[in-house]
This record gives sequence, C-alpha cells and structure tokens, in this order.
Amino acid sequence: MEHDGFVVRPIGRVESPLTDRKGAPRQSDESAPEAWLVFEERVRPALADLRPGDQIVLLTWLHRADRDVLAVYPRGDRTRPETGVFSTRAPDRPNPIGLHRVAVLAADGLRLRVTGLEAIDGTPLLDVKPILRGVDER
Amino acid sequence: MEHDGFVVRPIGRVESPLTDRKGAPRQSDESAPEAWLVFEERVRPALADLRPGDQIVLLTWLHRADRDVLAVYPRGDRTRPETGVFSTRAPDRPNPIGLHRVAVLAADGLRLRVTGLEAIDGTPLLDVKPILRGVDER
Repeated sequence: MEHDGFVVRPIGRVESPLTDRKGAPRQSDESAPEAWLVFEERVRPALADLRPGDQIVLLTWLHRADRDVLAVYPRGDRTRPETGVFSTRAPDRPNPIGLHRVAVLAADGLRLRVTGLEAIDGTPLLDVKPILRGVDER
Repeated sequence: MEHDGFVVRPIGRVESPLTDRKGAPRQSDESAPEAWLVFEERVRPALADLRPGDQIVLLTWLHRADRDVLAVYPRGDRTRPETGVFSTRAPDRPNPIGLHRVAVLAADGLRLRVTGLEAIDGTPLLDVKPILRGVDER
C-alpha cells in the first residue's frame, strides 16, 4: 500500500517546565509557561528567517498520546455523551499531532523562545509555519 | 533513539478535481475547488460528531513534497534571497504536513464535503481538529 504510513522525523524538541500531561493546560488560552524550542543542527537553514515577534504555528508529536482512542468524554465528564475525537482537541487520537499558536520571543541559533506553550518537556517538534494574515485569521 | 521517528497512518484521503501540484493554489484564500474527504472505516467513531457548518483544521500529508528542501525562493523568484522553509508555507519541507482551514458543507457517513481545499486528489489525511474561537482566532 502506497499510503500505508509515513515516517515523521522530529526536527527538535520542547524545553519546558511542564513535565507531566496533567500539568499541561488543555487549550492555549489557559496559562501555559514560556518554553524553548531546541532545533537539530540539520534543519538550521530552515529556521534562519524566524525573528522575535513572528507569529507561528507549531506542529508537535504528542508522544504520550493513546492512538487507539476515537471518542472521549468532554472534559473527562462521564455523565456527558462521548464525542468523536475529530470534534475535539484531545491529545489522544489516531495521529497525535499537536497544533500550537505561539509568538517568537527570542531567537538564539538553534533555540527559539516562545510564548505560552501547552506541551510537556521533551515533546518532539515536527514543523513550524508562519501565520498568514487573512488566511488563518479570517 | 526514542525520538528517531514516528509513523503516521492516513485516516483517509482527499477527492478533488485538482490533479497536479502546479494546479494547487499556494494559499487557501486563492480559488481552490470544493473537495470530498473520504475517511477509512476504522476511524468512523472519530468523525461521528462533525456537522455541516463546522469550521475545521485539516492536517494532510503532502506526499509529493521534497523533504530535503530547507530554503526556497519566495514565489519561485530567483532574484530574491532564499527563505528558510519554517518562515514559509512551501510544501517542500522536512515533515510535509499540510495545514488547511475549511468548513464542512455536508456529512455523509465516511465522506465530508468541504469548502475550497488546496490539496491534490489522493492527498492522505492525517487529522481533523475543530477551530477554537478565541484560541485560533485571537
């Protein structure tokens, strides 16, 4: 099968004071701490144009997720009906890719300091994309 | 190496009249055709709560991408300096994950009709997430 699977290779990882999933806020508008993104040497040219003030979308691999989960109780409330994970931001899902909107606070070689990030220490980084005004914000 | 790589498994694929990369608009505010998202039976419970009118973020695997590209000429203009791919939305990048904001027009079992999508026919689907007002739009 041509599309049986694809291998994502981390481009770096998160350095954060958050060390367990329960401590990670569920949505990025809750209080999450600033964090460092530490990139691998092999991708240095890809991040050469990132600057403080840039608004970015960060894609991560939620490596502690349970990939067999297809439906969850909203906010863990078992008195409510289960919801399909594609209608939630729950980390447990078939391909646990995290989507985080952050701003760059500082750039230092292979390290970027970013605003509040709801990802635990060691979370692998998959991609960084700029926010496009008028597309992502419309 | 614990983080040497992770395998993403497509949850479905795009059905679109777009059949080659050159025909695919680069940004989703350009004219892209409506498309069908066709999901695999195994993820049926995950999409059970998606409804017409839902605003979603679609993650795809840009399977024609060149993963060795780290910098590109903006809009292909070779008179301008190259830009690191993490500051662009170019499909060629180390982990070619596409990020698309679309609305659900119709839901029919394992098929979802969505608004303009700049992804070619056969593009593998990786994940669907709801847009969160106040988080993604702030």
